[in-house]
Amino acid sequence: MNFDYVLAKVKTLSKKKVAIAAAQDSAVLECVKACKEQDIADVVLVGDQAKIEAIAKEIGLDLTGTEIIDEPDMIEASLKAVKLAHDGDVDMYMKGLVDTKNFLKSVLNKEVGLRTGGALSHVSVFEVPGFDRLLFLTDVAFMTYPTLEDKVHIINNTIPVCRACGVEVPKVAPVAAVEVVNPKMQVTIEAAELTRMNEEGEITGCIIDGPLSLDLAIDPEAAKHKGATNRRIQGDADVILFPDIHAGNLVYKTLVHTTQSKNGCILTGTKVPVILTSRSDTFETKLNSIALAAVVAEELQQGK
Amino acid sequence: MNFDYVLAKVKTLSKKKVAIAAAQDSAVLECVKACKEQDIADVVLVGDQAKIEAIAKEIGLDLTGTEIIDEPDMIEASLKAVKLAHDGDVDMYMKGLVDTKNFLKSVLNKEVGLRTGGALSHVSVFEVPGFDRLLFLTDVAFMTYPTLEDKVHIINNTIPVCRACGVEVPKVAPVAAVEVVNPKMQVTIEAAELTRMNEEGEITGCIIDGPLSLDLAIDPEAAKHKGATNRRIQGDADVILFPDIHAGNLVYKTLVHTTQSKNGCILTGTKVPVILTSRSDTFETKLNSIALAAVVAEELQQGK
Repeated sequence: MNFDYVLAKVKTLSKKKVAIAAAQDSAVLECVKACKEQDIADVVLVGDQAKIEAIAKEIGLDLTGTEIIDEPDMIEASLKAVKLAHDGDVDMYMKGLVDTKNFLKSVLNKEVGLRTGGALSHVSVFEVPGFDRLLFLTDVAFMTYPTLEDKVHIINNTIPVCRACGVEVPKVAPVAAVEVVNPKMQVTIEAAELTRMNEEGEITGCIIDGPLSLDLAIDPEAAKHKGATNRRIQGDADVILFPDIHAGNLVYKTLVHTTQSKNGCILTGTKVPVILTSRSDTFETKLNSIALAAVVAEELQQGK
Repeated sequence: MNFDYVLAKVKTLSKKKVAIAAAQDSAVLECVKACKEQDIADVVLVGDQAKIEAIAKEIGLDLTGTEIIDEPDMIEASLKAVKLAHDGDVDMYMKGLVDTKNFLKSVLNKEVGLRTGGALSHVSVFEVPGFDRLLFLTDVAFMTYPTLEDKVHIINNTIPVCRACGVEVPKVAPVAAVEVVNPKMQVTIEAAELTRMNEEGEITGCIIDGPLSLDLAIDPEAAKHKGATNRRIQGDADVILFPDIHAGNLVYKTLVHTTQSKNGCILTGTKVPVILTSRSDTFETKLNSIALAAVVAEELQQGK
């Protein structure tokens, strides 16, 4: 599985629609143009219509037939856009020019937002050269210091993302510096507890095995070399569950800045997938994130 | 700077000598053979002489003129080997077949060990494809949850390693998921404090700037893109100081298992450099570690 699979799958689905909060941003509208050209998604642009039209003209984006809701105020625009997702009028919700803090406020808004009761989490999906499968990294950007309970939410949030990408029963590796429980390392105790919960049927739809060091999680050769033949994960993990945001974010940025990986990411645990790309993400990453959100939206709709 | 620089530098120095604890191990003796052939270091083999000679014969290692101290007991062998380093008879100390726990006990032994008063730490030196310089990762293997005081020791332990590799005034980035102080993230507070200590002359011989996200630490383009023009590190960090062993080890293994990097590592803060390679390290990594230890030994001897 890779991003070509995700992009190809999107085209087999009923067309998904994304509402964009404060769409008057050239990088965002470049994505909209590509989404139209490559048939990835339909859009509802919520924001400053005059500015949207001016940028569209500049970048050669034809807005004929595109739904635009004119709302120059960025906070109001985010609330109007998120309500479309809340009401089921669109399938995904995406950040435009509105700042992250106010965008997240709209996601968490009690009346028109996208909470489902559980915790929200972020998943970053990577296609790493040399790997025959996608890796699902969580949480590298949103939840700072997850508790055991949070980690259960993170896993449950991530499973539909894996399924949407063709991984029916993902292997989840709660990783740490070591592969054995060390009473002085809380993260290893929690990893073992997650494993027990999975074995006893309290967490389903996946195979959890932890604590694992990263080599045992992702490198079958290393697993063989270290004699890890009795483990349920032997270098073939799909989901890498990090101890905290620092470990996750540092690994995420190591992959981005030292390998030729492709990636896309979404916020999950919400009523519909949320696309919260960063200013520094490449155009390809943003497009991958929208495609990822579209297949996850389908998965969530089918799962209901 | 890269490992070719380190390997070339070794040959310009007076020949360094390494004592090996329980040397009756084929992987270790393969390294000894390469050290002799490539003129990297002299050795004192402490261990089971009969076994050492048998393995040497098998791998074609000529032991003529090689000092061997016959001690079949592995713990005794480690104590005899570390004493050679303690007494100044050798320049480096290396683990052979003795297990890590007992090897470290010998390093920490109060009578014949290598403590200097400060904390010990591990530094892993990376040559990453696409980078014009070596990266010094610390601590990815030894110190689990460093306090602020420990981090000062880690930095002071790492500076001579950088100097030995040709980096006179290393740039030290205490990294985290974010590049600003967040009162809810202790690691960012400590990073800012280390920066203040450096600015006010309490930590010298380096330039510290933190907290930094990894992109701002290692990618000049990202630093430019994010407008970090007022920072003392703008994508040009030498030392990556990790929040804890989990973050460090996960990044270390990401580099090992997803990039074509070269690396070598030593334990520092000791009287002489300690080589503690892992069973799963490649032959090249082990050899790089010995070469690294040799240039660091010279640096420590010159610094006295």
